[in-house]
Amino acid sequence: MIFASDNWSGAHPAINAALTAHGAGMAAAYGASDLDRRVERRFDELFEREVAVFFVGTGTAANSLAFAAVNRPGGVVLCHREAHVIEDECGAPEFFTHGARMAPIDGPDGKIDPDNLKREISRFKPDFVHAGQPMAVTISQPGEAGTLYSGDEIETIAKIAHDRNLALHMDGARFANGLAATGMTPAEMTWKRGVDILSFGATKNGCWCAEAVVFFDPAKASQFPYIRKRGAQLFSKTRFVAAQFMAYLENDLWLELGSHANRMADRLRAGLDASNQARQAWPTHTNESFAILKADRAEALRARGAVFYDWNPPHGFHDIVGDDEHLVRLVTSWSTTPDEVDRFCELLA
Amino acid sequence: MIFASDNWSGAHPAINAALTAHGAGMAAAYGASDLDRRVERRFDELFEREVAVFFVGTGTAANSLAFAAVNRPGGVVLCHREAHVIEDECGAPEFFTHGARMAPIDGPDGKIDPDNLKREISRFKPDFVHAGQPMAVTISQPGEAGTLYSGDEIETIAKIAHDRNLALHMDGARFANGLAATGMTPAEMTWKRGVDILSFGATKNGCWCAEAVVFFDPAKASQFPYIRKRGAQLFSKTRFVAAQFMAYLENDLWLELGSHANRMADRLRAGLDASNQARQAWPTHTNESFAILKADRAEALRARGAVFYDWNPPHGFHDIVGDDEHLVRLVTSWSTTPDEVDRFCELLA
Amino acid sequence: MIFASDNWSGAHPAINAALTAHGAGMAAAYGASDLDRRVERRFDELFEREVAVFFVGTGTAANSLAFAAVNRPGGVVLCHREAHVIEDECGAPEFFTHGARMAPIDGPDGKIDPDNLKREISRFKPDFVHAGQPMAVTISQPGEAGTLYSGDEIETIAKIAHDRNLALHMDGARFANGLAATGMTPAEMTWKRGVDILSFGATKNGCWCAEAVVFFDPAKASQFPYIRKRGAQLFSKTRFVAAQFMAYLENDLWLELGSHANRMADRLRAGLDASNQARQAWPTHTNESFAILKADRAEALRARGAVFYDWNPPHGFHDIVGDDEHLVRLVTSWSTTPDEVDRFCELLA
Amino acid sequence: MIFASDNWSGAHPAINAALTAHGAGMAAAYGASDLDRRVERRFDELFEREVAVFFVGTGTAANSLAFAAVNRPGGVVLCHREAHVIEDECGAPEFFTHGARMAPIDGPDGKIDPDNLKREISRFKPDFVHAGQPMAVTISQPGEAGTLYSGDEIETIAKIAHDRNLALHMDGARFANGLAATGMTPAEMTWKRGVDILSFGATKNGCWCAEAVVFFDPAKASQFPYIRKRGAQLFSKTRFVAAQFMAYLENDLWLELGSHANRMADRLRAGLDASNQARQAWPTHTNESFAILKADRAEALRARGAVFYDWNPPHGFHDIVGDDEHLVRLVTSWSTTPDEVDRFCELLA
Repeated sequence: MIFASDNWSGAHPAINAALTAHGAGMAAAYGASDLDRRVERRFDELFEREVAVFFVGTGTAANSLAFAAVNRPGGVVLCHREAHVIEDECGAPEFFTHGARMAPIDGPDGKIDPDNLKREISRFKPDFVHAGQPMAVTISQPGEAGTLYSGDEIETIAKIAHDRNLALHMDGARFANGLAATGMTPAEMTWKRGVDILSFGATKNGCWCAEAVVFFDPAKASQFPYIRKRGAQLFSKTRFVAAQFMAYLENDLWLELGSHANRMADRLRAGLDASNQARQAWPTHTNESFAILKADRAEALRARGAVFYDWNPPHGFHDIVGDDEHLVRLVTSWSTTPDEVDRFCELLA
Repeated sequence: MIFASDNWSGAHPAINAALTAHGAGMAAAYGASDLDRRVERRFDELFEREVAVFFVGTGTAANSLAFAAVNRPGGVVLCHREAHVIEDECGAPEFFTHGARMAPIDGPDGKIDPDNLKREISRFKPDFVHAGQPMAVTISQPGEAGTLYSGDEIETIAKIAHDRNLALHMDGARFANGLAATGMTPAEMTWKRGVDILSFGATKNGCWCAEAVVFFDPAKASQFPYIRKRGAQLFSKTRFVAAQFMAYLENDLWLELGSHANRMADRLRAGLDASNQARQAWPTHTNESFAILKADRAEALRARGAVFYDWNPPHGFHDIVGDDEHLVRLVTSWSTTPDEVDRFCELLA
Repeated sequence: MIFASDNWSGAHPAINAALTAHGAGMAAAYGASDLDRRVERRFDELFEREVAVFFVGTGTAANSLAFAAVNRPGGVVLCHREAHVIEDECGAPEFFTHGARMAPIDGPDGKIDPDNLKREISRFKPDFVHAGQPMAVTISQPGEAGTLYSGDEIETIAKIAHDRNLALHMDGARFANGLAATGMTPAEMTWKRGVDILSFGATKNGCWCAEAVVFFDPAKASQFPYIRKRGAQLFSKTRFVAAQFMAYLENDLWLELGSHANRMADRLRAGLDASNQARQAWPTHTNESFAILKADRAEALRARGAVFYDWNPPHGFHDIVGDDEHLVRLVTSWSTTPDEVDRFCELLA
Repeated sequence: MIFASDNWSGAHPAINAALTAHGAGMAAAYGASDLDRRVERRFDELFEREVAVFFVGTGTAANSLAFAAVNRPGGVVLCHREAHVIEDECGAPEFFTHGARMAPIDGPDGKIDPDNLKREISRFKPDFVHAGQPMAVTISQPGEAGTLYSGDEIETIAKIAHDRNLALHMDGARFANGLAATGMTPAEMTWKRGVDILSFGATKNGCWCAEAVVFFDPAKASQFPYIRKRGAQLFSKTRFVAAQFMAYLENDLWLELGSHANRMADRLRAGLDASNQARQAWPTHTNESFAILKADRAEALRARGAVFYDWNPPHGFHDIVGDDEHLVRLVTSWSTTPDEVDRFCELLA
């Protein structure tokens, strides 16, 4: 009954098999091998266009280096107030951009409210150096709150961004879960709606360590090789990332795994809805659920072996949690079993 | 006949087996699993003392974050003029330290000359802010030139460093090769001679991606968890690094692999010495050799399938290479076969 | 009728006289002259204790370097959501701290709400690396909104900060105006209430370019000389700053000038209160006033020669400004004349 | 008898008079005043072309921000091994560029040797990310060693730089002394010979604090306003810098002052050449001289009231100083008197 995070899961057997298969023999290092090339072309197919793709080691690196690629002096990234880039990356985005500011935009359901975004951008007058200069908008799909932007919502935000010449970045740490939940294609969820750069995460969904930065306009990536190397994210044996991606994307394994995790979350949410002891904090549709429990209930569940984290309530929404209650996050993964979920739900019944 | 770099080799079967063995089931993320703990304790045994050990993804990260841990405003790291941290890390050490300067110290054989080191340090007067302040000395063992410091030489440099309250860092990207070549124990080659922080590399010697920063005084590492996370080097599924190290260190696999690579290099050097078409540029004793070839010879070898890189001559020693000659680097690895070496040597004969 | 900013005013004659008086002859550079020493001791008297004081060139430098002095990896500075350090320094605080985050705290009247501060701090669990680590709280006195903290309010915030081992920094860009408005002594408005570091501004109040960072615990400033030099803020002829401060602090010139500016603002606010065409946006008590005007009124005033800036409404308070209205800032200075104010008020009548 | 540095001198009366003259009245802040505009246009005249000019507070800021303006990820600045940017700026160039490396080029007389420069640049292969990428060459005119590049020498270096698409920066901290010594015009010493960016220093030569960054191609300066503000170098009352420059450049005051300092140095050097107790370390032709003295002689001179600094011998030239000798630097300034020099020379006789 481990719902702590999807990164508590290990690696799918197919991923390990790929590593073993590609372990023997010599291959050019630093991204120059045939395998690297093949996997890069696999991304082209996936996104139905030529893309520039760069492997990195962590989601934090993917986001931070993506911002570095579009940074300007005094740069500002507009993001949701509870975005992972603000709350959970220990200042890495600021660090890798030499101090770009993550400007928080409020919005319900963990999603940027377009009116708030427009209003915040309007605070920056062109050529007014004191305020700095916006350089990107970032959205998470799915978001940290387990919610999803519709295609139209992405497009609305993209338009606001592009009107001010800002890049639109998508944090896709759980990209497969988002595709599975929305039914969109990779292209539909990204560049067809205006996304310029994607952090494409595979680690949480069955890989060991496989993240990629995808530029939908390869011309924008000309300095990225240096940005990545300077950022200590150029692995020597890149084929170990490439091999993971190869297996991950083969035969839709990734979508199957993401879909499974979402279904396990649906099953869990059904249990929450049926429970007298817990309730969903807000509706979610991916592999993350948020529940409000009495404090003693949380303790009792943990005593029985359930593992999950307390979660900070969203800014401006702390009233949703009562004084003797806990807000907790429950995450399912590719390796969560129906049995685990059912045992947890029984404890909640 | 691939002598381009030891990072062209893949992963040893035992490493892949360990990844498969540890892939199933849930485990605490971000370094908190039992396996992480066990491997950390394994480092204590290895070094015969309690150490603080942190896994990271690349050797560049290990070096750069180690410097960040001991940095001071206006900090200066004294290193050999051809050190990897200057020549091959795209400014990452400067980047992660927000601009610490890598101050080059000349010395023959790719090793810091102690007198030059003392002279350079003496240029920094205490409390003279203009020059900045030295904060560390770094040596590579083995060095970029394929050479080794003796225990006494390490101790001499450590003394100079400690007299000015500078940390001594060792870049051990090829640590196992160094141990195998010198016969020292891990403790003897490091803290017993005054090394304070070690970049412990395993990637080049049979792992996929396994590097560690080792602090011999754990008290000095109190801020390192934040430094690593901010540097985007905290993997979520750290057990994938831990598992590699577990297999790597088991039954002296690492020393066996490092020793094999060294022996293959000895075999290659014997071939160079016997050749009329090539000569060793300088004597080496690890898995790196440097040869001087006629330009047309280099071309011919490559045409026959040999892979190796041209190498920049050391500063101040460019005269060792004639106008129509190439300085090339030849690296053997855990996976180099005697047959490969022999075929190459035949072409040189 | 220039109410654009107090930094549109020039330098007081006494400041220029001091520069002329100290211009001749040789004096040790880089802060080592007798005059530097004397002025430093003057700060001790002013604050009734031994302080460490460092001259810098801009208020942005003072704030940014102060944060750098107490920074931690993944550091976070808690500040008001409309603080100058967020809104008007082009990311310099983030830049000089290599990416510390300015975490916005909401609160009415441009002041940090203590409950919000406590709640925000509580989001950072000790040793939870992902969130980063708070390192300082900063307040502006007077604040960007022209408002003031009482001594008790400062103390409340200091207690919250110190309970979590955070430094309390005060942005005193208009320190003299704050003293004049509250009647507190320099000591009472700072360390006696828990302030650890002060950005002491004199430029806006009659100097050319005279800012200082004051550490109330000199032991905390040991690395600051390097931080300042590395930050390109160590003037060679520091006596030009020292001479300004000498004249500024002599015979309470600074308090007299600050008091004058405040009185001019009172006069202006009386005019606003009496006007049918404008209203105060919120009550202020220093040399900054904020008014809401019909858009055509603002235009008309400018046509008559009045100079002032439109101002971004506070986050969450944009409703205070109607669709056809402007929020404008009106700043008086040491050189504002009653006549100017009266002419402006007449136009508003 | 103060030959410590030209920044020990104060401000010329004309500079102080200008400050007093421009102190009264209101003027737009942050570089937007009429005076700022007029002085900017004065620079156009001076350089016989339209330039973009930005005032900053220190020479360190001018150099560091200039490099930031042309920086690339993993950037490298090629400079002389004893350049001020390496030896005397506490890592500010590295800091403001987020870790660009200052790559030292050897050369006699404190000047970059063109062959060494070419050889060093050739170490950086295009698109080889590991080495980083050169982005600028910087020369000091006059250099730290008191020597001068001829126009042809500047052009030779410019050609090498431009062939690799590197900007050529000139550190002109003592620009007026250089012009006076060579007889070149400002245009001849800079862009006519290939200089792209100039740090134009006036502080050492009679101002208080007046430095400028001059871009000879204004199009290259589009981001510089943000770079300067983020770097805390945008003064609010910029007219205080503008006023200094106005007086400085009027009626060739600056050239007269620089020429005077050079003449005083010639007088001093004649004394050194005539002395039995001292000798010139190497020939110089500006306001800096370097002498070698017996240690006891240096002490005796200081006991008589002479003030000067010991100087680190150039790398590779430490043999020029005997064991019981001191290398000292002797700097004259606009305010040095013939009498002072003569008294010093008498002590040496």
